[in-house]
Amino acid sequence: MRPLTPADLNPAILNVQYAVRGELAIKADELTEKLRSQEHQGKLPFKRVINSNIGNPQQKGLDQPPITFTRQVAALMEYPPLVDIVKDKWPVDVIARAQELQAEIGSVGAYSHSKGIPLIRKHVAQFIAERDGYPSDPEDIFLTAGASAGVALLLNTLITPHKTGILIPIPQYPLYTATLAQFNGVPLPYHLSEPDGWKTSLDEIRTALKQAETDGKGITPRALVVINPGNPTGALLDQKTMEELVWLCEEHSLVLLADEVYQANLHRPTEHPFHSFKQIVRRLNSPIPLVSFHSISKGVFGECGRRGGYFECCNVPVEIRALLYKMVSVGLCPPLSGQVGVDCLVRPPREGEPSHALWKKETDTIHAALAHRTQLMAARLNALPGVSCVNAPGALYLYPRLELPQGAVDAAHKLGKEADTLYALELLEETGICVVPGSGFGQKEGEHHYRLTCLCPGVEEYVGMLEKFHLGFLKKYGINS
Amino acid sequence: MRPLTPADLNPAILNVQYAVRGELAIKADELTEKLRSQEHQGKLPFKRVINSNIGNPQQKGLDQPPITFTRQVAALMEYPPLVDIVKDKWPVDVIARAQELQAEIGSVGAYSHSKGIPLIRKHVAQFIAERDGYPSDPEDIFLTAGASAGVALLLNTLITPHKTGILIPIPQYPLYTATLAQFNGVPLPYHLSEPDGWKTSLDEIRTALKQAETDGKGITPRALVVINPGNPTGALLDQKTMEELVWLCEEHSLVLLADEVYQANLHRPTEHPFHSFKQIVRRLNSPIPLVSFHSISKGVFGECGRRGGYFECCNVPVEIRALLYKMVSVGLCPPLSGQVGVDCLVRPPREGEPSHALWKKETDTIHAALAHRTQLMAARLNALPGVSCVNAPGALYLYPRLELPQGAVDAAHKLGKEADTLYALELLEETGICVVPGSGFGQKEGEHHYRLTCLCPGVEEYVGMLEKFHLGFLKKYGINS
Repeated sequence: MRPLTPADLNPAILNVQYAVRGELAIKADELTEKLRSQEHQGKLPFKRVINSNIGNPQQKGLDQPPITFTRQVAALMEYPPLVDIVKDKWPVDVIARAQELQAEIGSVGAYSHSKGIPLIRKHVAQFIAERDGYPSDPEDIFLTAGASAGVALLLNTLITPHKTGILIPIPQYPLYTATLAQFNGVPLPYHLSEPDGWKTSLDEIRTALKQAETDGKGITPRALVVINPGNPTGALLDQKTMEELVWLCEEHSLVLLADEVYQANLHRPTEHPFHSFKQIVRRLNSPIPLVSFHSISKGVFGECGRRGGYFECCNVPVEIRALLYKMVSVGLCPPLSGQVGVDCLVRPPREGEPSHALWKKETDTIHAALAHRTQLMAARLNALPGVSCVNAPGALYLYPRLELPQGAVDAAHKLGKEADTLYALELLEETGICVVPGSGFGQKEGEHHYRLTCLCPGVEEYVGMLEKFHLGFLKKYGINS
Repeated sequence: MRPLTPADLNPAILNVQYAVRGELAIKADELTEKLRSQEHQGKLPFKRVINSNIGNPQQKGLDQPPITFTRQVAALMEYPPLVDIVKDKWPVDVIARAQELQAEIGSVGAYSHSKGIPLIRKHVAQFIAERDGYPSDPEDIFLTAGASAGVALLLNTLITPHKTGILIPIPQYPLYTATLAQFNGVPLPYHLSEPDGWKTSLDEIRTALKQAETDGKGITPRALVVINPGNPTGALLDQKTMEELVWLCEEHSLVLLADEVYQANLHRPTEHPFHSFKQIVRRLNSPIPLVSFHSISKGVFGECGRRGGYFECCNVPVEIRALLYKMVSVGLCPPLSGQVGVDCLVRPPREGEPSHALWKKETDTIHAALAHRTQLMAARLNALPGVSCVNAPGALYLYPRLELPQGAVDAAHKLGKEADTLYALELLEETGICVVPGSGFGQKEGEHHYRLTCLCPGVEEYVGMLEKFHLGFLKKYGINS
């Protein structure tokens, strides 16, 4: 027996990087274990690890409460005889919703249609039509195990290995670079403009296309990825830019992959509203193939653990939609608990229904808390020397830029690391706060950033720890001249 | 804008075939829709479609009941305040289990560790250790969204595109050929021996290896897939064959991928018991890397819709386990409802606990019904002219062989189809029973089979429809001379 080594494996797998759950997250897990063990009791300079590396609102310690309506429906789906016990205790719209879904689905223990339960796809289409003012066809909807599963399916389908280029924003959510590496796609990065609040620049995209055309490697650009609201940036696209992006896709025959999972996370919606690409494409009557992704993990719903989401195909030829159906059928079906979650996301209690008041109170509270924390954290971070931070109008994150002392850059390079990785590692070790360094999302040579979530309750104490650490770090490595 | 066509896509995706949800299943969906619509009312020769194409015990019409213990725990996980309402109504072990899991997990709406909740992985390891009599390390356990997700991950990791060969049984569950096509792996098929009850033949595997070695295509065999109990065959491996397979993997430096999802579906366990490959590998003290897959979708649990399962790595080097962890982290985590399901599968109520009696009654009933149906269907099918059928000792299926009239073969070829596909299509159109033709699983040239599940209640009526159709088909196309 010759031993199995990494050299025996798919080289593409070795190239995959995913910083959100990379070195920092693994270190955070080790520290969490240490805090639990007797041996290290009291020996660490903090009492708990705060996982600000990942948008996971309901995790322990953050404890964003789930929406009551959703969970009561879910409990009834799990155990239908429960209705006899709760029928006089729970709102009638909860009971009615569960019974409607049970009549359609039967048991949540059965595989569903591979694209998802037809009735729920119909409800998604109604939600989209109401949002955009343009019709949506349930046959164009695929329910998925979170948006990530949908993105992976589309990239796998669109990429001919080593030949297909995919335009991705920098910085980007590293799902995209990871999945491109996995399927041997060629990333065609375009930079967002930090001085303009991380605005998407058409010129940058044109430059990336030109480079792919002229570098002689024979790469065919096939798709443009846009994340709106942005991750990690929180930026929102204005309608003019969106129109230009659609025209650019027309001009270059690109599929538009619109990651719109943060569409409900808007902190200043009057000033920075959300428009879906579906609406823009339909309004312009554009023929570009568009696939837009949504999720139950974000928004104020935050149901990450259910693994639910959907994508909508628009202008995708029927024979290609059939290929996507074939591929999802190999995986059998998305989790039923996620599918039921999608139904509750797209059909929340309406005004006048018994669950509406509580639903409104719960969702308003979470929206307000997120907007408040984002605002406060951005202001306080911006007040620190060597930190500048776009006050994100959307999503769940801030992405501050760091001017780090040369001493820190040198110290990091000695360890074979980027300076923002060193910063994040020391932040974790001193405060228990886990963030993701900018190198995980992509940034210009010599720049430093990190992404942190705006999910932590007790924001004053939390931002206080960030401030104290930052000032100590500057002192330790010497203020930049 | 140049339109997007299938020719623009990943050629590997175009090559994927998955018969379990292929032509027959799509046709069955259309018929189900027709039965629902007013227009076709009474115009079809059957009242309902029976989806015998897929092992989906809890689907509507089959309605295998879920295990009460599992569902009560799941309902409490979804809505923890429910405990106040049910605490005097539900068994104390249900409440205790839910509270133990809640204390560990927090909310089922949060992402978990990407390999799955540590406590549940510990319980899986205990289950394996108890089953096999050899220890299991929770760090070697990965919880997954059903066994399929685990198989896809392992194949993606092990396959260098166009260079890696994977030994697969014929007939096989088409997940394997579909996933090999998706990742450009090279199938190295080995035939199971139908006259010996679908026994696994070492000679066939050696022949397949020899062929890969000598055909000049430079394919490196990397892994051996074994499905035990078999799908679609239901065959169980004896220990001697298992030992020989382990030695063969040693000799050829192969990773053993053991699909053991039907390990609890044993119809005659005294005569045909299940032994895990983990036990054999440990007993032989073999160094071969083994990855074994299990699922909550099969057995008598039948919780397909939750998408839960796990794989255990044995003798897999730590750095390769770390690569697998990196890859699952890109997908964030398996669905929490599936993870909670895994906990209930591996830790059912024990004797003496309040839920045990009901759990035992429920599981005994399902086991007995499956064994009875399998036995009865095999006997009745074997009594038909031109049908022979191994009386499967395990899994959920029968895989009868058909001797079809030349007239049927000719008629099928005129339609560009295999004769067993024609048989399955006509069976569906006449009776509403959907099965999968043998061409979907692989068979020798000129042979014909189909796979059907043994899940349908009302087995007498069901098998009566199969008999009537079969005799009519023989008559229609002329009995073979």
